[in-house]
Amino acid sequence: MNDFLKRLNLLKENFDIKLREILTFFKGSALFDCIEYAVFSGGKRIRPLFYLEALRAFGREITQSDYIVASAIELLHTYTLVHDDMPCMDNDDFRRGQPTVHKKYNEFTALLVGDALQAASVQLLTQVAGEGKEYVAAMRTFFEYAGVSGVIEGQALELRYNDKIPKNIIAIYEKKTAALLTAPLVMAADVSGKDEKLKNSLKHFGRAFGFAFQLSDDLLDYGKDKEVSFASLYGKERTLEEMNKHSLSALMLSKEIFGDFGFFSEISQYVAGRKF
Amino acid sequence: MNDFLKRLNLLKENFDIKLREILTFFKGSALFDCIEYAVFSGGKRIRPLFYLEALRAFGREITQSDYIVASAIELLHTYTLVHDDMPCMDNDDFRRGQPTVHKKYNEFTALLVGDALQAASVQLLTQVAGEGKEYVAAMRTFFEYAGVSGVIEGQALELRYNDKIPKNIIAIYEKKTAALLTAPLVMAADVSGKDEKLKNSLKHFGRAFGFAFQLSDDLLDYGKDKEVSFASLYGKERTLEEMNKHSLSALMLSKEIFGDFGFFSEISQYVAGRKF
Repeated sequence: MNDFLKRLNLLKENFDIKLREILTFFKGSALFDCIEYAVFSGGKRIRPLFYLEALRAFGREITQSDYIVASAIELLHTYTLVHDDMPCMDNDDFRRGQPTVHKKYNEFTALLVGDALQAASVQLLTQVAGEGKEYVAAMRTFFEYAGVSGVIEGQALELRYNDKIPKNIIAIYEKKTAALLTAPLVMAADVSGKDEKLKNSLKHFGRAFGFAFQLSDDLLDYGKDKEVSFASLYGKERTLEEMNKHSLSALMLSKEIFGDFGFFSEISQYVAGRKF
Repeated sequence: MNDFLKRLNLLKENFDIKLREILTFFKGSALFDCIEYAVFSGGKRIRPLFYLEALRAFGREITQSDYIVASAIELLHTYTLVHDDMPCMDNDDFRRGQPTVHKKYNEFTALLVGDALQAASVQLLTQVAGEGKEYVAAMRTFFEYAGVSGVIEGQALELRYNDKIPKNIIAIYEKKTAALLTAPLVMAADVSGKDEKLKNSLKHFGRAFGFAFQLSDDLLDYGKDKEVSFASLYGKERTLEEMNKHSLSALMLSKEIFGDFGFFSEISQYVAGRKF
């Protein structure tokens, strides 16, 4: 394991301790065990770490409220995966080597666990929303990316356009993948009182990183993917070219935005350097 | 139609004009038409009217922000119905005489429209959350009833306990029906800065009204219901008795809380007086 992967893993483990503790807020619920199963099944926690590491890069001290926001981000991401795996969507039996929620339990449980995770995300955010306008702003930002015209629309577009044409696949990657990677960065900027100029740069970085990330996933799945992807449409070579373009762009933007703070440039390099 | 029903209908029609206008915020979304179909399919709008009429009873002028909150309440209620109707839940083809969302479109659309409606509800609430702590408090209250340990748990309990025993059926009615009728009342108290004592009375009223409402629905469906209900378990006579007990309690509480303001006592009498 290289140094960056070790560091990423350490950050993930530290965050997981906080997440597990924050999740106990829902312990009284009849769905708690199923929620816990969905949340602790090997996620890499990239989205909450984007929020926390961006705060750190901005020189802010990370508070309990920030861990609550980061947890809310991960719970919402998890709900999109649980619903995505269901028979009427992608119909996947396994995720990260574990049975998906509807296989482990049943379909109605998966439906309700997804609904509960979205609600839980909101419940956590309302815990901190009273602390000041900057947290309310972060919540508004989050649902711009996670809401009706964000990740949900990305899922709808993916299922509608089975005949994925180039224009559609870009819109799908934008909304389904890039949106939830961009949101935590802009939320960190909201909470830190940063200006629109910086937020715009973060949006560009989030988009570039999101595309690089999705395209590198396409490359990893190349040949075994059951769904249409950029790679299955355009082949390995063109996908690698696009992926390199986006990860280079992410790398340059990360240096421009975060200067010497290494996390975001290292993760951009890591994504680009995976073995395909 | 009696006078109260006429008044209820007028309130509903006025609210629907606002709701339609507020919903246009989501017009750019690929799911907009399906969302609109789900929302405008004959709902009685009791929950948003509970919020608005409670504010009126407290002597508050109703603002655009309050119509936004009321719309958020209705959108969340609608999402629970859309998901509830799905094949893996109650598997209903019709609701209020119209094809359910998964029949009109397909299953994945129903899943995503439900997800989008919950997100839309949050998006509307974040629009007003910046106006002051009382709206943040109302949002927190809402998700106590609508979240992990509220209505979603009610749905989970209902599907888990197919052998509905008395203890379970009370918990299910409490969470599935009473919760979303109580929430708007407590939210109106939050927004109006009312104290805990009044909120407690509102919770008692909401619970009593919720049970009367659900039991009167049981009585209306008696003999044609495909699911286990209080009425199918205990028969018509005992259900009528329970229903009368709860509606009398709702009536007394409504007079204690709202004095001469007639809406809540009239609706309690109306529910009790339906033809069974």
